[in-house]
Amino acid sequence: MYDLPSKFTYGVVRSYMAARVPSGSADMAAVLPDEQLRYPGHQHSAEWWLFKDLLRRGPRDGPVAHVDDPRDADLFYVPFFSSLSLVVNPIRPPAAANASGAAAAYSDEAMQDELMEWLERQPYWRRNRGRDHVFICQDPNALYKVVDRISNAMLLVSDFGRLRDDQASLVKDVILPYSHRINAFQGDVGVEGRSSLLFFMGNRYRKEGGKVRDALFQILENEEDVIIKHGTQSRVSRRAATQGMHSSKFCLHPAGDTPSACRLFDALVSLCVPVIVSDYIELPFEDVIDYSSISIFVETSKSVQTGFLTSFLRKISAERILEYQREIRKVRHYFMYEEPHGPVNEIWRQVSLKAPLIKLLTNRNKRMVERGANATDCSCICSTNLNLGGD
Amino acid sequence: MYDLPSKFTYGVVRSYMAARVPSGSADMAAVLPDEQLRYPGHQHSAEWWLFKDLLRRGPRDGPVAHVDDPRDADLFYVPFFSSLSLVVNPIRPPAAANASGAAAAYSDEAMQDELMEWLERQPYWRRNRGRDHVFICQDPNALYKVVDRISNAMLLVSDFGRLRDDQASLVKDVILPYSHRINAFQGDVGVEGRSSLLFFMGNRYRKEGGKVRDALFQILENEEDVIIKHGTQSRVSRRAATQGMHSSKFCLHPAGDTPSACRLFDALVSLCVPVIVSDYIELPFEDVIDYSSISIFVETSKSVQTGFLTSFLRKISAERILEYQREIRKVRHYFMYEEPHGPVNEIWRQVSLKAPLIKLLTNRNKRMVERGANATDCSCICSTNLNLGGD
Repeated sequence: MYDLPSKFTYGVVRSYMAARVPSGSADMAAVLPDEQLRYPGHQHSAEWWLFKDLLRRGPRDGPVAHVDDPRDADLFYVPFFSSLSLVVNPIRPPAAANASGAAAAYSDEAMQDELMEWLERQPYWRRNRGRDHVFICQDPNALYKVVDRISNAMLLVSDFGRLRDDQASLVKDVILPYSHRINAFQGDVGVEGRSSLLFFMGNRYRKEGGKVRDALFQILENEEDVIIKHGTQSRVSRRAATQGMHSSKFCLHPAGDTPSACRLFDALVSLCVPVIVSDYIELPFEDVIDYSSISIFVETSKSVQTGFLTSFLRKISAERILEYQREIRKVRHYFMYEEPHGPVNEIWRQVSLKAPLIKLLTNRNKRMVERGANATDCSCICSTNLNLGGD
Repeated sequence: MYDLPSKFTYGVVRSYMAARVPSGSADMAAVLPDEQLRYPGHQHSAEWWLFKDLLRRGPRDGPVAHVDDPRDADLFYVPFFSSLSLVVNPIRPPAAANASGAAAAYSDEAMQDELMEWLERQPYWRRNRGRDHVFICQDPNALYKVVDRISNAMLLVSDFGRLRDDQASLVKDVILPYSHRINAFQGDVGVEGRSSLLFFMGNRYRKEGGKVRDALFQILENEEDVIIKHGTQSRVSRRAATQGMHSSKFCLHPAGDTPSACRLFDALVSLCVPVIVSDYIELPFEDVIDYSSISIFVETSKSVQTGFLTSFLRKISAERILEYQREIRKVRHYFMYEEPHGPVNEIWRQVSLKAPLIKLLTNRNKRMVERGANATDCSCICSTNLNLGGD
């Protein structure tokens, strides 16, 4: 891990706090030492926990080791809090922040530029043009201004919704789970306490792939055993979502502005079988998780046919639902950031799996002779989607 | 490993022997049990040793385990002796073979077809359309007739000279070393016993990338400290090559019909620093071997400039040559099939490194919804060759 200037990590947390809390407590936060700063509520969990995990000293049995000498490093983690940086400035700045001037001074775009200026001065960045560097940009808009300057590197992302094929791929990058926001269901597998067939609560109107949401609302909102509600994030709606996901057999997961959303992980920790309507979704840890055994995928075009979804789901037997739930229970620790063998270790394992290919390409690059000016040299793995069927 | 009908493995050896040895001994070979058949001289070593290694029972500490139940397998090795099959019929069939009729009956193309017919009936082949299968085709012409039917699978090859980008890639496939044909140099590092600057012996006339050879002959054949000889494979020329490689500082490695050749590995086991003139070469185990520290790469266009190669090589100090030799000594076990920690284990390690991505893609394929008819879906890792310099 880079010993990045702290303005790119804890400094982002301080700016975030300064923009939100009454100026007195912000001042108090300003004098707190770094190690005493705590996880700020709205940060993507992975961003915080991967950083804290690498800071942890002492023996570790995980898939990665933190080395102090950069010459020993296979990969370089750049722990910039890129997603938190994006939301430092609240949409409507509170008066307090305006008064202190602290929030107004923060610019996410400027931070992205400063990060790149800093990196581009580092010999280890220049050595392989960033190929062996790892960035976290879990929010689809994180690092957007500099994404073309870091696209050689490994990106830890939620999906490829805003990224072009030449910026990100399954070969180069790692898909992270969002952290669930509602509490895990503590009960056993079963359908008795799950009286409603299908549950969805969220924003009815979204951009791009999320336009399907409005169509789904129209089709589903008059079905008796379906709970579908327009709602935005709040403590009240979180309570309603918990209640709904813990008492439904299936939980709808339509695409949002991009193909993925945290709702999928809420459903999984609730043992509510996800019904995924998002044709371009990518899913975390798919080498160890067979998502076809823990969720149901429905093509967008089929999902908006009147009556299709409900009649399809009603035909699924209680025994089959139990099977899905049992499979979900086997893998849900992968999505619980609070678990010792949870996502943090698994993300590092995924990162480490990419290391040999990165090493191969960096070694190869050292000895490559000119194959034509600025020729792009790609290695791919392809499959032709013959759609042989299945569910 | 597949329990392939033995006609695809030992059967190929029998056909090969029958076509070459006096009919009496061929009959004897025909009654030998499979386990007593020995390595036939002209087979690519990996083909034989990978097969024998997987047959070996008992505990193993290598990177792969052989499972008996296909449900437990991550990958399926198809041990067809594809390169040996290619040369079963000698170019000029001896009279004995003609008399027995055995050699005339063997058809490599028919074998390739029969292999595919057999595989395409197997449920494990059909399950993932071959994606989790591994083929060895080290000769650039091996399996050529069916290569489009197996291009989903992992291929163990020498280079990508005859393969298109959609048939093979560094992401999907593994580059194997040829086995060296001359004896390893037993002496220490040093330049004292190495009186000649540069050595090459081989076919002067080759197709495609190998056309550079004739140009190199013209430039180099009158240089006093260069030994460059036209020669084809024979016991005599092998002895001359051994002598030459053991007593030269540098060994020329121009492209042949395809970018790679066994000569590179002869040079390495001889501690003769390879001078590689082959712009499209791919090299084995490049994640663990930095070839820029054990060999010199020269662009084809530069290598044919009069005087360039020799004056460039003469400027390299004895100390620098010793450094190259020391680095070569550290890695040459990777190229010695007779070593316990040699290429066989390393090939399996390379194969096992691909398993997670293959598993990810097969899991993903199970749940993918239609993204358009016959759409090809590729994941790539790319680099733009900016040629920042180096040596």
